[in-house]
Amino acid sequence: MRIMGIDPGIAIVGFGIVDHEGSRLKAVHYGSIQTKAELSTPQRLKHIYDQCTELIHTYKPTVVAVEKLFFNRNVTTAFTVGQARGVIVLAAAEAGVEMTEYTPLQVKQAVVGYGQAEKHQIQQMVKMLLALPETPKPDDVADALGVAICEAHSSKLARQVHSADGRNGGRVT
Amino acid sequence: MRIMGIDPGIAIVGFGIVDHEGSRLKAVHYGSIQTKAELSTPQRLKHIYDQCTELIHTYKPTVVAVEKLFFNRNVTTAFTVGQARGVIVLAAAEAGVEMTEYTPLQVKQAVVGYGQAEKHQIQQMVKMLLALPETPKPDDVADALGVAICEAHSSKLARQVHSADGRNGGRVT
Repeated sequence: MRIMGIDPGIAIVGFGIVDHEGSRLKAVHYGSIQTKAELSTPQRLKHIYDQCTELIHTYKPTVVAVEKLFFNRNVTTAFTVGQARGVIVLAAAEAGVEMTEYTPLQVKQAVVGYGQAEKHQIQQMVKMLLALPETPKPDDVADALGVAICEAHSSKLARQVHSADGRNGGRVT
Repeated sequence: MRIMGIDPGIAIVGFGIVDHEGSRLKAVHYGSIQTKAELSTPQRLKHIYDQCTELIHTYKPTVVAVEKLFFNRNVTTAFTVGQARGVIVLAAAEAGVEMTEYTPLQVKQAVVGYGQAEKHQIQQMVKMLLALPETPKPDDVADALGVAICEAHSSKLARQVHSADGRNGGRVT
């Protein structure tokens, strides 16, 4: 099973592609899609969409797991991140890849073990769990890998209860 | 000049295609793209994207004018509308069509003449200005036609000041 975790944004989209076999996790590729502030919104969204589409076609993930909005952010941020997320979700849908979503709380619980974890704790655990040589930068990349790990744990749990329907965590409806 | 006005949303996207020659406005086609609530978000976004792309390819607008967010809406609404808007903006960008955006205030001022106008006043003015047989339904369609009328007025104004740079209203940066 290959998971592509994504932390959406208009300036930086973090992505992390992780292979998941049994209890083993392996980072295949990770990084960020960045768009320059001097580009127009349509240009930025097109760049994000094109890059996501290319990553999906190249790495052929089984599932794309996307971080859900921080609901404490403001309306303008929500709207801007929403636009970026829209084209990412579209890229997955066009490629016929299943999509799941997780809140930051779910990611923290899956990666660190408790929901109040600090950012640097997530980064350290991501580095450790995937045996990376160093902490991935920018933060959005570590977050994206965290979402992929969360998806791996969630789908493992689902298999343990021997029911695809038992997987109520991240399915996007 | 052919303008495609859009009022974005996840359940209903209103659209209105208006030809603009001199001071004459003519409604070419208008209606709504609707997505069922039982579809997943990826499916709804893909439907909106596909339908927008088809409309753009069929009617070949010179410009796509999109209504800006109501900033008094809540974070969840902003995020949801943002996602829909993202794939609409992408459809225009992929087709190489210029995009502009207008706030509800700008639309009211352009269509009715003052910013505090009620919804039914916009609908009546849209019907009158475009000589429609009846008020377009649902509201989102009248709103989309209102955005197209706003774009027509704005671009006419720009020509009157003999400067493309004088057009600071709607250009999306």
